[in-house]
Amino acid sequence: MIKIIINREARVNFEPSERSREWRARLEAFMAEHVYPNLETYHRQEAEGDRWKAVPIVDELKKKAKAAGLWNMFMPPSHGHAHVDDTFVFDHPGLSNLDYAPLAEIMGRVGFSSEVFNCSAPDTGNMEVLQRYGTRAQKDEWLKPLMEGAIRSAFLMTEPAVASSDASNIETRIERDGDHYVINGRKWWSSGVGHPRCEILIVMGKTDPSARAYSQQSMILVPTKTPGVKIERMLPVFGFDHASHGGHGQVLLENVRVPVENLLLGEGRGFEIAQGRLGPGRIHHCMRIIGAAEVALEKMCKRLLSRKAFGKTIAEHSVWEQRIAEARIDIEMCRLLCLKAAYMMDTVGNKSARGEIAMIKVAAPRIACRIIDDAIQAHGGGGVTEDFGLAQLYADNRIHRITDGPDEVHARTIARLELGKHAASDPHPLRKAG
Amino acid sequence: MIKIIINREARVNFEPSERSREWRARLEAFMAEHVYPNLETYHRQEAEGDRWKAVPIVDELKKKAKAAGLWNMFMPPSHGHAHVDDTFVFDHPGLSNLDYAPLAEIMGRVGFSSEVFNCSAPDTGNMEVLQRYGTRAQKDEWLKPLMEGAIRSAFLMTEPAVASSDASNIETRIERDGDHYVINGRKWWSSGVGHPRCEILIVMGKTDPSARAYSQQSMILVPTKTPGVKIERMLPVFGFDHASHGGHGQVLLENVRVPVENLLLGEGRGFEIAQGRLGPGRIHHCMRIIGAAEVALEKMCKRLLSRKAFGKTIAEHSVWEQRIAEARIDIEMCRLLCLKAAYMMDTVGNKSARGEIAMIKVAAPRIACRIIDDAIQAHGGGGVTEDFGLAQLYADNRIHRITDGPDEVHARTIARLELGKHAASDPHPLRKAG
Amino acid sequence: MIKIIINREARVNFEPSERSREWRARLEAFMAEHVYPNLETYHRQEAEGDRWKAVPIVDELKKKAKAAGLWNMFMPPSHGHAHVDDTFVFDHPGLSNLDYAPLAEIMGRVGFSSEVFNCSAPDTGNMEVLQRYGTRAQKDEWLKPLMEGAIRSAFLMTEPAVASSDASNIETRIERDGDHYVINGRKWWSSGVGHPRCEILIVMGKTDPSARAYSQQSMILVPTKTPGVKIERMLPVFGFDHASHGGHGQVLLENVRVPVENLLLGEGRGFEIAQGRLGPGRIHHCMRIIGAAEVALEKMCKRLLSRKAFGKTIAEHSVWEQRIAEARIDIEMCRLLCLKAAYMMDTVGNKSARGEIAMIKVAAPRIACRIIDDAIQAHGGGGVTEDFGLAQLYADNRIHRITDGPDEVHARTIARLELGKHAASDPHPLRKAG
Amino acid sequence: MIKIIINREARVNFEPSERSREWRARLEAFMAEHVYPNLETYHRQEAEGDRWKAVPIVDELKKKAKAAGLWNMFMPPSHGHAHVDDTFVFDHPGLSNLDYAPLAEIMGRVGFSSEVFNCSAPDTGNMEVLQRYGTRAQKDEWLKPLMEGAIRSAFLMTEPAVASSDASNIETRIERDGDHYVINGRKWWSSGVGHPRCEILIVMGKTDPSARAYSQQSMILVPTKTPGVKIERMLPVFGFDHASHGGHGQVLLENVRVPVENLLLGEGRGFEIAQGRLGPGRIHHCMRIIGAAEVALEKMCKRLLSRKAFGKTIAEHSVWEQRIAEARIDIEMCRLLCLKAAYMMDTVGNKSARGEIAMIKVAAPRIACRIIDDAIQAHGGGGVTEDFGLAQLYADNRIHRITDGPDEVHARTIARLELGKHAASDPHPLRKAG
Repeated sequence: MIKIIINREARVNFEPSERSREWRARLEAFMAEHVYPNLETYHRQEAEGDRWKAVPIVDELKKKAKAAGLWNMFMPPSHGHAHVDDTFVFDHPGLSNLDYAPLAEIMGRVGFSSEVFNCSAPDTGNMEVLQRYGTRAQKDEWLKPLMEGAIRSAFLMTEPAVASSDASNIETRIERDGDHYVINGRKWWSSGVGHPRCEILIVMGKTDPSARAYSQQSMILVPTKTPGVKIERMLPVFGFDHASHGGHGQVLLENVRVPVENLLLGEGRGFEIAQGRLGPGRIHHCMRIIGAAEVALEKMCKRLLSRKAFGKTIAEHSVWEQRIAEARIDIEMCRLLCLKAAYMMDTVGNKSARGEIAMIKVAAPRIACRIIDDAIQAHGGGGVTEDFGLAQLYADNRIHRITDGPDEVHARTIARLELGKHAASDPHPLRKAG
Repeated sequence: MIKIIINREARVNFEPSERSREWRARLEAFMAEHVYPNLETYHRQEAEGDRWKAVPIVDELKKKAKAAGLWNMFMPPSHGHAHVDDTFVFDHPGLSNLDYAPLAEIMGRVGFSSEVFNCSAPDTGNMEVLQRYGTRAQKDEWLKPLMEGAIRSAFLMTEPAVASSDASNIETRIERDGDHYVINGRKWWSSGVGHPRCEILIVMGKTDPSARAYSQQSMILVPTKTPGVKIERMLPVFGFDHASHGGHGQVLLENVRVPVENLLLGEGRGFEIAQGRLGPGRIHHCMRIIGAAEVALEKMCKRLLSRKAFGKTIAEHSVWEQRIAEARIDIEMCRLLCLKAAYMMDTVGNKSARGEIAMIKVAAPRIACRIIDDAIQAHGGGGVTEDFGLAQLYADNRIHRITDGPDEVHARTIARLELGKHAASDPHPLRKAG
Repeated sequence: MIKIIINREARVNFEPSERSREWRARLEAFMAEHVYPNLETYHRQEAEGDRWKAVPIVDELKKKAKAAGLWNMFMPPSHGHAHVDDTFVFDHPGLSNLDYAPLAEIMGRVGFSSEVFNCSAPDTGNMEVLQRYGTRAQKDEWLKPLMEGAIRSAFLMTEPAVASSDASNIETRIERDGDHYVINGRKWWSSGVGHPRCEILIVMGKTDPSARAYSQQSMILVPTKTPGVKIERMLPVFGFDHASHGGHGQVLLENVRVPVENLLLGEGRGFEIAQGRLGPGRIHHCMRIIGAAEVALEKMCKRLLSRKAFGKTIAEHSVWEQRIAEARIDIEMCRLLCLKAAYMMDTVGNKSARGEIAMIKVAAPRIACRIIDDAIQAHGGGGVTEDFGLAQLYADNRIHRITDGPDEVHARTIARLELGKHAASDPHPLRKAG
Repeated sequence: MIKIIINREARVNFEPSERSREWRARLEAFMAEHVYPNLETYHRQEAEGDRWKAVPIVDELKKKAKAAGLWNMFMPPSHGHAHVDDTFVFDHPGLSNLDYAPLAEIMGRVGFSSEVFNCSAPDTGNMEVLQRYGTRAQKDEWLKPLMEGAIRSAFLMTEPAVASSDASNIETRIERDGDHYVINGRKWWSSGVGHPRCEILIVMGKTDPSARAYSQQSMILVPTKTPGVKIERMLPVFGFDHASHGGHGQVLLENVRVPVENLLLGEGRGFEIAQGRLGPGRIHHCMRIIGAAEVALEKMCKRLLSRKAFGKTIAEHSVWEQRIAEARIDIEMCRLLCLKAAYMMDTVGNKSARGEIAMIKVAAPRIACRIIDDAIQAHGGGGVTEDFGLAQLYADNRIHRITDGPDEVHARTIARLELGKHAASDPHPLRKAG
């Protein structure tokens, strides 16, 4: 008799945990009951009247999701940083990145659903920053309403005038003047800033341009209504405005004055916060992107099965077999890499996982763009219109090859980690592969 | 009786089990102590005298590996098929596919090392066939010496005259004549048949060409020395002969007569055996391929760090950062997909895992070929010579896009599974991606 | 002494003719004087008020271009078809495709400039159809004002309900009823139909669904104002409306009744007209696309030279060298193929050039999309906005992989021509490449 | 004196000249009568006995080709350099690059045929060097027998120890010692050096390592039999030895002493000669590569038409339509670019054509490798064997992405030319594409 006792505690395992399974089931049930049936309503309301508004059905669904406890799932268990006041208690299930990842993928299937569950960027990253680095007062004032979904927020880092992928290029100044800081600069890609409820901005700038490269930057909280904050324009993305998500703004900061208490963590620690902030945000984006890729593949298959050309369904033309197969392979591989990155963030921390985070940041949007592009091609003229949402999906994903650092910068990170393994090494015994 | 107790505290986990960790450590220690230091010896002995020989150092290392218990790790726990005599006991640790996968990857780093551990194709697949489908007599005669590493074997399926990827095209005949079967046909890509110890062939042919498409084929055991078996030539692969692995033969079978007892499983069941055989073999190949890709990436990095052009090391030219990053990303993703396929084979069986097996069969060689090609480019003229083993590595991997079914056939499988999800479905609620 | 007399009349030659050179110089001078300085004016006027309007600066420039004789350059020399009344005389220089191609490329640099010179699609194709297949009365009524730039037109072929790339799928009906034809169907991608001056539609539909596959279709002239013609909506292209070009409409034709005299050429000859129409149109598009690719490459270079990251201009990062080189190579190759296709159309006719036309139809948009995508990446966040026009350029070019037949259909044509060379051939003497 | 009369009726023209047409016809007739029927003979003779030999059939065919006047077609009309003695007269038709290009393509279809017509590398490049830069004595001694096909030659530039793509890295020393130069160094990729008739080597080395980067190098003539010249080994290319072409040697030069008269052109002018030598050589290679790509496409089509899978010929599976179409498109585009480069070399000179030369150097082998790889895939297992010559064809072409400078170095050249157009420019008027 052979008896195999598989102890799942310590072996590679691709089964989701009971907890994860349960959360997925709850989320999918909510999506099926409340979100999918309201897609048309959403698009109709979005199209009516002013675009820069809270869409009513989203507000309705937010209430339902909150009531159902499907709320703030993105927020990891408390980090217990010594320097923050941890007595602040708020409503969130404290899921690991690994358990949250499949939920993010499901939300990625319907663009607006992240907001329904108070899990939408850039608020999630901003809430994490406040939770990890904020003072009790900062939390009371800004984190609380954010966690409640009462207000929204924006993150002002990228600048139009310089290659912001190199953080040392940033030109915005944050200068001390008595009990205040005075901020001057121009930012863009300030996502969400066009939402009517966007009340707080986290701004990155230089407090000391003469310091070491990565100690020049600081982050500071700036209420949107502060004098000197001016939204110069909202940026289109391939002709789309992302209005119902709050769009992407170009913001002029002209002698913006805020109390010194608004500084986060301390002068010169902006780069450190940015690093901490971007890890989880990137992985959330990637899981949502995988959800979007699944939607594109699904639409591609359905379309190919529904149309005929030259005597058979287009699905039977083998060129499409290759594309479907590539799409399925790439999605599977990419999802696993995302899960592994999440696993590492949970177990060894964001810093040790930086290679994996950089990898999915490069892989996910690239894969999704290719699949969506194939799906567009499968839909013929319909693919580039609004009818199947594919053109917008393409635009939404294409920017992810640029935001939070372009592919090239992440590839640089990955390559340096790889080269670092060999830099000091002796010639390897393996002169030939055998 | 097999009893699998799955701990319901299951969760996605990327840590290898204690058992896997231990086996990896043992294998790596053996590689470090016995294999890597003998690479030069191997290449020297391989180059001396007749190419079609057992290389002495391999025989020496086999004894050591067997003594160290690093032997037959490929063989999964007994499958308990009712139709076979399970009392046959042999020496193997009974590792799951998931635990074996990392070992295969390590062996993939040095081409001849699989044989050292009696884990080399095509013997592994042939041993599995005999274990799952052989009678007691067949096992005694052929499985025993194979498991002991005393003899080697070949698998004769592909034919030069037809597109063998469509099994219904096979033309070799296996005809009953009294107490014998008489076999006629021509095979090629009979790997290992040129090894001096190759004593047994498993031959696929048609016993009943009038039966349903997938019941026409049978498999039969043919001792290599049977009259009528003629190796017409050994096939080169991009100019390489793979002689020390037994090469790849073109074999003419002319009125080859074997007793009826040599038939495997039963007439008309050849396709069924082939399906069962190919799953594990494919995943073993894929893990070895990943090992080869790692070797290529490692050599690429070292070379780029060691040479200068235009005032800096070539590693500092950013075009190589992109290639290294892509290589690392692809290896990571592909390895995870292999592990998942192994996991599924262990838990839900080869048939349910056929989508995943097809996916890695397409993904692994494609990825490896690209990485090896980049490594060749990084080595300049040295890349295509014998000096770094990269050209041979390319050739070794390129054939995997063809053997066991070309990419196109596996893509077809994947696409059909994917399309099958949607074929009968109602129009999806998701008209737009939102 | 060696004396080489190169007789340009009969040898491969890459120098443009005196005539072509002269026309290019004239066009470039006009662009420099009148078009480039008015880009801002154009964008400002386009953005003001109703989008679906004739942009005033375009009308102004049209007058100037006409006065300068830069008008209708697209129209080839008279074809002298026996069945048309050739006495109709209009104003055009009668350039060959080869001489027109570089002009189209120049116009491709600025989207609206084609209209300035009365060389914009779909009018050009429609004018050719009328010139080649129209009766004297049809020419007087519609060709004359089109050639004068007084009205605009649309071409209604593609249908939303079927894969229109297979012309036999078309469902619109054109039924005879006494002295009239009655048209019913739904079309989309009716480009230009949203222009306020779009007065005439050429509609493709079936007069006899029971005829042989390519004799079922006919083409008929339908004035836009005919009762039953209803523009249901204007289609977005990745969020862009192309309004100033007249956009792309979805048009319902409900019991649309026109006199029998409006039929073009004869019942059952619609497919023939379509074939004749598409050749020149495709090559004009391709040359414009090359102009667009040049613009993207130029912007990419300038951006890379203007920004610094990690201590040097981004242009100095070698990953961009590779992309620039690929872009330059692809543009050069594609332009030459376009010129060759034009040359063949001029010398052996559109039908014999169908392979070359299909090739550029596949190659040009593919190449342009990749270059524009790289240019977007080079511009970071700016790339997807309106600031550099690159996102719109991408959208404009992406549809060309779909319009006038998707890539897959043209690849099919090319492959069939290629396979046709070998279908009946004896085995070639070249068993090995030597 | 050279007098080029350009007919000002010039126009882009894709028809070959009368002269080119005639030469093609003569060459094709010879190939059909003498080369194709002897392919089997060649392969049989090549396989017999010692590989490092002159293949008898090649010697026979050389005589016939010489008698037919199909000889030395590669050699351009005399360049009239003031510093060389032009009275030396030899037998060659003086074809332009443009007229020679199609001949090179035809020769590219059968690897050994270049030698038949005394047009094979590296002799062609070496003959050009001697013709352009050699003294009367050097020509009498070496150019004459080379032009007559009596001897062969090699070019020793690349070194195993450094990245030779940056010529300033070269380490071989050429030191003056009285009336001699003494040469020390190690070279590899010395193509042709293994041919029994290889009697003369052109060696690149440094005469003055302290001079400016591109004035350090000189070139010198070294008879193969000079003491100190040692062929250490012949390099395999993916397992192929290219023996009948003389292979590729690794050559040790140890205190090799030659008279000062053997220096070419002058001390410090080696880089200048190398630049002049590589242009024509590259374009000849590229045209041959295109011929090889045509062979691969032809074989691919024939194979796909000849095999069935899943109920139809493989040619009818649409995935292959895409690959065939891509192959045809790429070949057409690449051939045109080669012709244009040839045209520019003929009309404006090698230096002005350096961008185009770099472009085809990158484009041609890349395209050929992809097509050959697809052809291999189309042939299944047969593709990687010797049966169709495709694996060898792949290897032969793959090295062209490395020899004469790797792709990356040529891409650098192209990118710098491109960036140079914009480096000093004002911001362009085209802020948007319109």
